[in-house]
Amino acid sequence: MKNILLIGAGRSASTLIKYLLDTSQKENWKITVADISLELAKQKINNHPNAHAIAFDINNEEQRATEISKVDLVISMLPATMHLSVAKECLHLKKHLVTASYVSKQMKELDADAKKAGVIFLNEIGLDPGIDHLSAMKVIDDVKAQGGKMITFKSYCGGLVAPESNDNPWGYKFTWNPRAVVMAGQSGDSAGATAQYLENGKTKYVPYTRLFSNAHTISVDGWGKFEAYANRDSLSYMDLYGLQDVKNMLRGTLRMPGFCKAWNTFIQLGFTDDTCKVSDSANTTYAQLIESFLPESNHGSVKKKLAKFLREKENSPVMKKLDWLGIFKNQKIGLNNSSPAEILLTLLMKKWNLKEHDKDMVVMQHEFEYHLGQGTKNKRQGKKITSSLVVIGEDQINTDMSKTVGLPLGISTKLILNGKISIKGVWIPTVKEIYNPVLAELENYGIRFIEKHS
Amino acid sequence: MKNILLIGAGRSASTLIKYLLDTSQKENWKITVADISLELAKQKINNHPNAHAIAFDINNEEQRATEISKVDLVISMLPATMHLSVAKECLHLKKHLVTASYVSKQMKELDADAKKAGVIFLNEIGLDPGIDHLSAMKVIDDVKAQGGKMITFKSYCGGLVAPESNDNPWGYKFTWNPRAVVMAGQSGDSAGATAQYLENGKTKYVPYTRLFSNAHTISVDGWGKFEAYANRDSLSYMDLYGLQDVKNMLRGTLRMPGFCKAWNTFIQLGFTDDTCKVSDSANTTYAQLIESFLPESNHGSVKKKLAKFLREKENSPVMKKLDWLGIFKNQKIGLNNSSPAEILLTLLMKKWNLKEHDKDMVVMQHEFEYHLGQGTKNKRQGKKITSSLVVIGEDQINTDMSKTVGLPLGISTKLILNGKISIKGVWIPTVKEIYNPVLAELENYGIRFIEKHS
Repeated sequence: MKNILLIGAGRSASTLIKYLLDTSQKENWKITVADISLELAKQKINNHPNAHAIAFDINNEEQRATEISKVDLVISMLPATMHLSVAKECLHLKKHLVTASYVSKQMKELDADAKKAGVIFLNEIGLDPGIDHLSAMKVIDDVKAQGGKMITFKSYCGGLVAPESNDNPWGYKFTWNPRAVVMAGQSGDSAGATAQYLENGKTKYVPYTRLFSNAHTISVDGWGKFEAYANRDSLSYMDLYGLQDVKNMLRGTLRMPGFCKAWNTFIQLGFTDDTCKVSDSANTTYAQLIESFLPESNHGSVKKKLAKFLREKENSPVMKKLDWLGIFKNQKIGLNNSSPAEILLTLLMKKWNLKEHDKDMVVMQHEFEYHLGQGTKNKRQGKKITSSLVVIGEDQINTDMSKTVGLPLGISTKLILNGKISIKGVWIPTVKEIYNPVLAELENYGIRFIEKHS
Repeated sequence: MKNILLIGAGRSASTLIKYLLDTSQKENWKITVADISLELAKQKINNHPNAHAIAFDINNEEQRATEISKVDLVISMLPATMHLSVAKECLHLKKHLVTASYVSKQMKELDADAKKAGVIFLNEIGLDPGIDHLSAMKVIDDVKAQGGKMITFKSYCGGLVAPESNDNPWGYKFTWNPRAVVMAGQSGDSAGATAQYLENGKTKYVPYTRLFSNAHTISVDGWGKFEAYANRDSLSYMDLYGLQDVKNMLRGTLRMPGFCKAWNTFIQLGFTDDTCKVSDSANTTYAQLIESFLPESNHGSVKKKLAKFLREKENSPVMKKLDWLGIFKNQKIGLNNSSPAEILLTLLMKKWNLKEHDKDMVVMQHEFEYHLGQGTKNKRQGKKITSSLVVIGEDQINTDMSKTVGLPLGISTKLILNGKISIKGVWIPTVKEIYNPVLAELENYGIRFIEKHS
């Protein structure tokens, strides 16, 4: 019998818990679901015979040590900054650790010690990061095995809303952390405010303020067109994926067509600033606040003035999206002592809210260009592969995000406990030993990449 | 005999030390000049009989207490964040404190205790903040005494280069903290990235990215035109100056005409970002880096591409300023692992360096609009006052900045020690008891505001 400790039973853990419970009989697992809220943990395991729920405080050292000592493997669904104390305890007690978070510098530093302890700390095994690594590395390794030379790697991912639930002009609802969507590119963001990528062998820098006017369009077979804007960090993936010699390297985020131009309004106004406070924000109306950000105080409605500022017609698609948000209304904001970003976030959380029967949708697409053969241009063959995934969520509990994050975590947990993943130390899933079996099992759950070669 | 401890003997303390030494005979002062560098402190007092130099470590609690216990008043020229430990010791030992820094929240909280201890902690008594408070409050109080109702307050200040030393197309050299000039509006800046001011009774917000395209022109009698862009924080001065009912409230920074449009290039490119690193920055040329920030990779020289991006002609004043900086050259940057902002700062420190015989120039101008008389429009008189100061530095030691910061500090020190300033607690110089005598003595040193009434 194997014992698993899952820390954190929030919404994104729903599918993971279901996977662990469903698998527990066959695998002979005992699962402890630990959360700061005992109620939530109990609700999630729903009296399953192979599981029990505990109230858990990550800051309680004694409890941390006691609970970790009882198990073979820990899955941490805590916020990324809280993994380290769990990791150190896992090191001390020689337990495996699985997370869906980016490997921090401090986590990376535990590599030698984890190897010495004979355990694996497997990180970035959710959706993005996670499924992106698995699926990209499978193609990259295949191309290398054929003797191909990779020229271009572009990878896109978007957490969107399914077509049947897409009922607003933005084509967008929050399916993930709303704050991260609104406040990206903010001051204090450790990733920096400038996107970097490689184009024709040259590094390109795009500041956050130009990111949304710089968006481009991609097509996903059977699903139509999407807009993509560059992520901050594309270049570090050259080392991670062994693509040091490519000429084009880009990771981007997907939105529905038309989103970026409309969103750019808030960037250009300066409305996503979270560091300044709006004076008397509670009694200011949305229309007044928009006007306060406009450079001139000419006559006419706020809508007219904003259209002029944006060089848009008043009934353009951009203006329709803005109008739909209600920002031209003389309605009081009603929030005290708030920043423009907080005001926007609060408004969007009402307008872009996923409704009860709404389904979310994850779209991921990798685009590869490579050469086969050596020597002069005539002897080389230019090849392309597109690898695409579209997954639609089931309901508000088993959302697509919960599925695509939870299943890779659950599957890799099983593989570690069965000894199918034998590497030790701090890893991300860029190696065959992990990506092959995880991708294979994901297909059973409808998570299947379609590859198109040309 | 009175004893004074001056902590910090850097460049900006030169004129202050001269004032203290020159005044010491008549006033019977003993002055201790304390600096982390004994050499520097010794050099500054130049064997003056009423002064002695000590090596001083602000983090040495014992030394701090010992030295402060020996004196009647402490002048702290330390960086703003380091005043607090001095202030607490002054409180404990019941000593007066004078600084040229903004009152921090923590400093403000010492008000009641300072009153109880019977001492004054006088802050913001340099140039800006300092002389701006003195000169603005004098006019504001005069207008109030006449029964006037203030409608508009606009206040501008710029640290520039004297016309005889103005030999570059930007009309600018660094006379103050270069880092603050280049990295203003940066992430992590506690003042926030959005400028706020009042225009026709309405709050206006301008994000840093639009600040330099939003500049306007003012005229200073006898000195011609200057460009002004809004400071981040104009609104808090409404409370500080008792101007809660004005319709227009703006504080701005002055540059020579043409500066703002050219500087806006770096803002639009995203070149002032200090949070991202340029890959292989040492071996990249300036021209390559500029190109990396440009949205398109068309043919033609970098200069041509940038001109297109900016919608400028290749020989326009903006392009000439940029060309003069050398940013189109194929010269290697030579700085390792640097951010764009650091690269720009390092380049500008070479190009905008104040040369040995260069003189700096401070320009300050307040513009007031007010009504005299009450009742209907016909019975009210619309009045204007402009109050202007232009000061040219003497040399590289007694720069204008050193004079305009040091003299108000020195004069107010004398007034406190003579009991002419009798208020206790934490203050800034917005009261008659301070501004009248300080302004009067500043005139002896050529620091005199010209008032124009209309």
